[in-house]
Amino acid sequence: MSQSPQSLLCPDAFLSPLEIDDAVTRALAEDLGRAGDVTSIATIPADTQAHAIVIARKAGVMSGLPLVAAAFKKLAPETGIRAHARDGVSVAAKTALMDVVGPARAVLAAERVALNLLGHLSGVATATHEFVRRVEGTRTRICCTRKTTPGLRALEKYAVRCGGGFNHRFGLDDAMLIKDNHIAVAGGIAAVLKRAKAAAGHLVKIEIEVDTLDQLREVLDVGLADAVLLDNMDAATMREAVEMVGGRFALEASGGITLDSIAEIAKTGVDYASSGWITHSAPNLDVALDIEM
Amino acid sequence: MSQSPQSLLCPDAFLSPLEIDDAVTRALAEDLGRAGDVTSIATIPADTQAHAIVIARKAGVMSGLPLVAAAFKKLAPETGIRAHARDGVSVAAKTALMDVVGPARAVLAAERVALNLLGHLSGVATATHEFVRRVEGTRTRICCTRKTTPGLRALEKYAVRCGGGFNHRFGLDDAMLIKDNHIAVAGGIAAVLKRAKAAAGHLVKIEIEVDTLDQLREVLDVGLADAVLLDNMDAATMREAVEMVGGRFALEASGGITLDSIAEIAKTGVDYASSGWITHSAPNLDVALDIEM
Amino acid sequence: MSQSPQSLLCPDAFLSPLEIDDAVTRALAEDLGRAGDVTSIATIPADTQAHAIVIARKAGVMSGLPLVAAAFKKLAPETGIRAHARDGVSVAAKTALMDVVGPARAVLAAERVALNLLGHLSGVATATHEFVRRVEGTRTRICCTRKTTPGLRALEKYAVRCGGGFNHRFGLDDAMLIKDNHIAVAGGIAAVLKRAKAAAGHLVKIEIEVDTLDQLREVLDVGLADAVLLDNMDAATMREAVEMVGGRFALEASGGITLDSIAEIAKTGVDYASSGWITHSAPNLDVALDIEM
Amino acid sequence: MSQSPQSLLCPDAFLSPLEIDDAVTRALAEDLGRAGDVTSIATIPADTQAHAIVIARKAGVMSGLPLVAAAFKKLAPETGIRAHARDGVSVAAKTALMDVVGPARAVLAAERVALNLLGHLSGVATATHEFVRRVEGTRTRICCTRKTTPGLRALEKYAVRCGGGFNHRFGLDDAMLIKDNHIAVAGGIAAVLKRAKAAAGHLVKIEIEVDTLDQLREVLDVGLADAVLLDNMDAATMREAVEMVGGRFALEASGGITLDSIAEIAKTGVDYASSGWITHSAPNLDVALDIEM
Amino acid sequence: MSQSPQSLLCPDAFLSPLEIDDAVTRALAEDLGRAGDVTSIATIPADTQAHAIVIARKAGVMSGLPLVAAAFKKLAPETGIRAHARDGVSVAAKTALMDVVGPARAVLAAERVALNLLGHLSGVATATHEFVRRVEGTRTRICCTRKTTPGLRALEKYAVRCGGGFNHRFGLDDAMLIKDNHIAVAGGIAAVLKRAKAAAGHLVKIEIEVDTLDQLREVLDVGLADAVLLDNMDAATMREAVEMVGGRFALEASGGITLDSIAEIAKTGVDYASSGWITHSAPNLDVALDIEM
Amino acid sequence: MSQSPQSLLCPDAFLSPLEIDDAVTRALAEDLGRAGDVTSIATIPADTQAHAIVIARKAGVMSGLPLVAAAFKKLAPETGIRAHARDGVSVAAKTALMDVVGPARAVLAAERVALNLLGHLSGVATATHEFVRRVEGTRTRICCTRKTTPGLRALEKYAVRCGGGFNHRFGLDDAMLIKDNHIAVAGGIAAVLKRAKAAAGHLVKIEIEVDTLDQLREVLDVGLADAVLLDNMDAATMREAVEMVGGRFALEASGGITLDSIAEIAKTGVDYASSGWITHSAPNLDVALDIEM
Repeated sequence: MSQSPQSLLCPDAFLSPLEIDDAVTRALAEDLGRAGDVTSIATIPADTQAHAIVIARKAGVMSGLPLVAAAFKKLAPETGIRAHARDGVSVAAKTALMDVVGPARAVLAAERVALNLLGHLSGVATATHEFVRRVEGTRTRICCTRKTTPGLRALEKYAVRCGGGFNHRFGLDDAMLIKDNHIAVAGGIAAVLKRAKAAAGHLVKIEIEVDTLDQLREVLDVGLADAVLLDNMDAATMREAVEMVGGRFALEASGGITLDSIAEIAKTGVDYASSGWITHSAPNLDVALDIEM
Repeated sequence: MSQSPQSLLCPDAFLSPLEIDDAVTRALAEDLGRAGDVTSIATIPADTQAHAIVIARKAGVMSGLPLVAAAFKKLAPETGIRAHARDGVSVAAKTALMDVVGPARAVLAAERVALNLLGHLSGVATATHEFVRRVEGTRTRICCTRKTTPGLRALEKYAVRCGGGFNHRFGLDDAMLIKDNHIAVAGGIAAVLKRAKAAAGHLVKIEIEVDTLDQLREVLDVGLADAVLLDNMDAATMREAVEMVGGRFALEASGGITLDSIAEIAKTGVDYASSGWITHSAPNLDVALDIEM
Repeated sequence: MSQSPQSLLCPDAFLSPLEIDDAVTRALAEDLGRAGDVTSIATIPADTQAHAIVIARKAGVMSGLPLVAAAFKKLAPETGIRAHARDGVSVAAKTALMDVVGPARAVLAAERVALNLLGHLSGVATATHEFVRRVEGTRTRICCTRKTTPGLRALEKYAVRCGGGFNHRFGLDDAMLIKDNHIAVAGGIAAVLKRAKAAAGHLVKIEIEVDTLDQLREVLDVGLADAVLLDNMDAATMREAVEMVGGRFALEASGGITLDSIAEIAKTGVDYASSGWITHSAPNLDVALDIEM
Repeated sequence: MSQSPQSLLCPDAFLSPLEIDDAVTRALAEDLGRAGDVTSIATIPADTQAHAIVIARKAGVMSGLPLVAAAFKKLAPETGIRAHARDGVSVAAKTALMDVVGPARAVLAAERVALNLLGHLSGVATATHEFVRRVEGTRTRICCTRKTTPGLRALEKYAVRCGGGFNHRFGLDDAMLIKDNHIAVAGGIAAVLKRAKAAAGHLVKIEIEVDTLDQLREVLDVGLADAVLLDNMDAATMREAVEMVGGRFALEASGGITLDSIAEIAKTGVDYASSGWITHSAPNLDVALDIEM
Repeated sequence: MSQSPQSLLCPDAFLSPLEIDDAVTRALAEDLGRAGDVTSIATIPADTQAHAIVIARKAGVMSGLPLVAAAFKKLAPETGIRAHARDGVSVAAKTALMDVVGPARAVLAAERVALNLLGHLSGVATATHEFVRRVEGTRTRICCTRKTTPGLRALEKYAVRCGGGFNHRFGLDDAMLIKDNHIAVAGGIAAVLKRAKAAAGHLVKIEIEVDTLDQLREVLDVGLADAVLLDNMDAATMREAVEMVGGRFALEASGGITLDSIAEIAKTGVDYASSGWITHSAPNLDVALDIEM
Repeated sequence: MSQSPQSLLCPDAFLSPLEIDDAVTRALAEDLGRAGDVTSIATIPADTQAHAIVIARKAGVMSGLPLVAAAFKKLAPETGIRAHARDGVSVAAKTALMDVVGPARAVLAAERVALNLLGHLSGVATATHEFVRRVEGTRTRICCTRKTTPGLRALEKYAVRCGGGFNHRFGLDDAMLIKDNHIAVAGGIAAVLKRAKAAAGHLVKIEIEVDTLDQLREVLDVGLADAVLLDNMDAATMREAVEMVGGRFALEASGGITLDSIAEIAKTGVDYASSGWITHSAPNLDVALDIEM
């Protein structure tokens, strides 16, 4: 019995079937071009069957297995899928992730697309998870930013969840994030927060970015924010900020957060530490396809 | 006088205006969502103008400036663009790349999309260029693979060219690359090459992947290939391969090529060294936007 | 000098130029079909010019004027637009809204699309505004729901803003709204709120729907919600709810809210009253085009 | 056995499977956004099953049931559908329309889209049917106009058919409708009809709009029209028009036709009475989903 | 001064700017692929300008010049267009049709797309015109069918108009055409015509296909058709049919109509002669581009 | 058991399932329009079943049968398909190609689309095959060009393969073809070939067009080309060219190649003869649908 792509999703995260179909179709179209897999057409008979095994060559956290299944089925709906892992799971190096049985030409034609999707998203999930492991036992949650690969935001945000991270805004539209330019134009922190609150509906949160504790104090005085982003502060200042705020709103550390610095940042007691690196610069996880025909 | 996106292209590489428009539209749609930049609508008057400067915080090779210009103009066609660099150029850290003058709300709404595109593609171009610099003075050319970020292949292949690299196949369809599975099914190297040659039109090149010098010798005997991919060979073996082939077809080194190993590989005399890393795992170049309103 | 569609937007609301272009293109394609305006091709010479005036036959609040301008320009870019109103403005019956000067065939071909867009969105804005006027002087804000016309959500949410209303969620994804089924599956209000809070990022608000004051009390005890939706309560119960909550989170009245009942509801002191009617059932505003050739 | 969306169509009307898929996909994408149903992901386990019942809260004529079925299946193909009604059928208030059995998360995620589609189209069908009932026993048929909700024309025209109405033109391209501007530019009724006839193929009908009986007489003299639209005439004048024409071509009453006036209009003997209101301003039919998990 | 694509349209026919943009974009994407014009990038400097002249090598009727202009401008908006002909005009062999001045790379990249569009549509227009010339002086009009090249219907129907022909149905939806299967299922000619009339709105024409004069007589008796298609009748039978009908409805000759037979058919007095050949099998008109750089 | 569209593909050629779905959807949308098959809705009950047989009226080579199957299944997935031929096969006149059993309305609605696709592509395959038959026993292969019908390139290139032909470039991007303008701008044959070689990756072939044997000699001297296109040469000159080249690279004859001249050209010993006519001007193959209900 073949498994459906949906059944391989991480249970704590959302990825729409529309998005899966769209991403897979787009990637296949890009790779097949106009003439398709000219090599396999020339060298492999149309009726040859293949048994392929998707493998994680390196250890990591899985993300993208539903897309892998969907890619193979898109080119040959009769392809059988049996998965040995699902998204969100950590696997060791050299783990067999999925058996794929179908027409050899279709398996070969979908191979690179499947691996590119799985390698990219598992790369994001694995990078996220490395941060997450370093903050275990603290109150700090790792979250992503809007610094994502253009066109892949929903997929990468999903991968962050697979890795145990939390999602920041998905776009400019699902929360307010007030930055220095907004403050400057509005005429200060009090003014900008009042404008923001007056415009925001009751389901829109307001976060404001501050560079100094003085600014943070002003936000505390005005009191209309749901969260404050501490921009490029050192750990000592962050610790002070945490004390000042006393849980009245969420504190997010941002700017130059690395695997080296994250543990110390988490010790300051901030609620969130956000990293653009996990989405825009995480290296691919090394995945491969072993094929027998 | 505002500059057109097209005028900022790398002169040695192609990126279609259709692709530019498509990538920018898709990325903007993803970031604007349904409600748009709720923060700026709430805090910045509709008629406020902004002057923004796109900056490279770190040194690197530019790729994506036409997309940056297109992103700003897409949201406000009246935006003025004056660029101080174009794609394919190396810039020092802290270089001002482009002045952007337009409605503040539109500038802020396009900011992240513009930076994500520029940071990603310049990351690829810069990574490519680092490899290219290490092979200067040798006959070896750096080239990319099909291990690209799903949905971004044309853009990333363009970025590779901006960085001085060469492009391998754009997809499964523009050349034949015969791998172990094809050889096995067809019944050996001679058989697979004959099948391939019989099917290929006169404008389709044939490359075949070999693991050993014995296989290479067989290819030399059959003589129907345009290029041979040396898969995961050490430098000594590659050197031998170069001698054996004596320029009769192109030799491509592939597998585990890193910045550390590339110089030694180039010394073997191979024609091409291909790297998936430069497209699937190159870190973003750090770029930013300074805004005055 | 012709005006740009963007310049006619309501300054307090967002509508993306991508959305404008998409909505207009889709509507024009739907009306032009494959053969276009066969009547005008047959009866009006290609070089005839037209001067048209967009008119509000009935009083109302404008929404959709940028789309009107975009529709005419889409079919003939040389068309001149001079607007006498912009979105968000209330106009009297028989107000001239916009002069349009261009090729007669193009003006006639775009007429119905322009009027359908303007009539529909101004209908929503006007309906919203009637509710807004009835709550003036109270703390209650009028907001919309997800009961919108399929395919037109971003446009209708914009129209609600034009009418002075606030926006509720734009989709399932930009805030949590916990309903009876969620409560039942999770095993009660405390359990569901804890699950929700554990999963929500720091920029996602949580609203929970309650039917009774007992449920409301439980929410107050648990304390993890940002807002509570009072489902189908009578005014007396709502008043009690307002007292119980004492401003600790936002209260939204929902269910059967009409122009007749809204004033009384607003007197209860709830923060929001939400209406599906203003988006799914508001009648078109009567708008027309007077044409001289 | 689950039923297919197609099997729920009104047998006398057409709605393409392409259109169904397109409308449902578009509406789901709009509601799911980038992050999907964050509430259900957080609070309902991935393997929870739901049994939902689609209900008409108010009496009305069904339109949109195939779209309801398609929406649930789109998010989870394994969802079981058992319908108790089909499009075109009148149901009483509180009628159970369809049983839906599937994964709870998918059922909840598709709920609003399904109800918005069904409520909107059944609203149009029900409004149409109210007009149709008032003209029963007369020769007058109720028909729609091009005053439809932008982007929903094919769906709304289908809903009109479900309600027992007839369709006017689907667009500018499937028949000629000559209005005052065409007459003026062409230099009078005789001239415009000759031009129209000369250009029209043999499968394109020609209708002309007249304001007065004098104009109608002129049309009768020229004799090239298939139908005449009587624009804003009172019932007495219409009756005279009917006599004058004596069945030589179809007569359509248009302008300000309401539920109050329609019976009197029908008594005049006109062949068609057209109403924009039934498509652009019909209120939603009240439909709901009862869910058990 | 550069001319707009729209200004080159045939004045008696419609082609939407949306359709022009769509067709040109699609064809360019198909030809540029992912890597674009690799030859010109390699061999022609980015700043080289070109002056190209579009030429009709053979005599014919023009159709597609607006698409030619749009193709060049799509790749380089600054391209200057000066046309010496417009669609619908007959030109001699070796006529210069249009001067194009722009960046050499863009001109070369758009060349084949422009010529393919112009050659195909002018081929249809020219084939149509050859039929039209042979029926001059008779009452017979040449018209097309639904036997068009998939995906190009609107363009080819436009080309038929450019050639002086008339358009039959654009699709299944804009008129009824009753064929033998419909008659058989409905239980005869009288029954099928009654069903059709009962379902058709007042702007939908009804045509019925007959094979024999007996069937034609039955149609005359029933009297609900607007047109009759005479299927594969010889000229003598057609002449009899014309007499029988006496102008009471339009008669269309169909089936095996060729340039050899058309004159004789026209002499029978039928109103229309329809040909699938002019759209599905007309050879390309020979057009070329002369370029100077 | 119903057959899948994929199973009807020509085994030596590629056509992506994405392309099949896209082509069929686009063609159906074009034919169904907004109102669908109004004739069948009016005259054929919804539950009538049909048995249809796809027939080749004339002898020819099949291409497009997978699209035929896909078209019927797209409108009614339950439709049963039993094929008696597959693409690439030659059939005699009056051959039954496929049995189709499904809902009558769906079968009739998809009929014209199915036949248009099959007739067009089989026309291309049949025309190609006529050339191929005339060169049997020679070394000459027939190939296509980029002179294809806009929007149908992948389909037509596939049809050429079905007919036994070879594919030239699929677009501007998959090989270099140097023409007179490139030579002129670069400053001669040697210069242009060096530029091309310097820019081309190792999997991009270079072909150069020559008009004279002097030019050919120059290409031989420079030696960087993979193929040479002999433009409009007579047979004697071609024969000389073949001798001069002595197999060092592929020779392609191009320009004015017809069924009359092809045999003589093949005798010259050229490797390829390319024809635009087989894609842009091949007449439709006559195919039909016999239906029983």
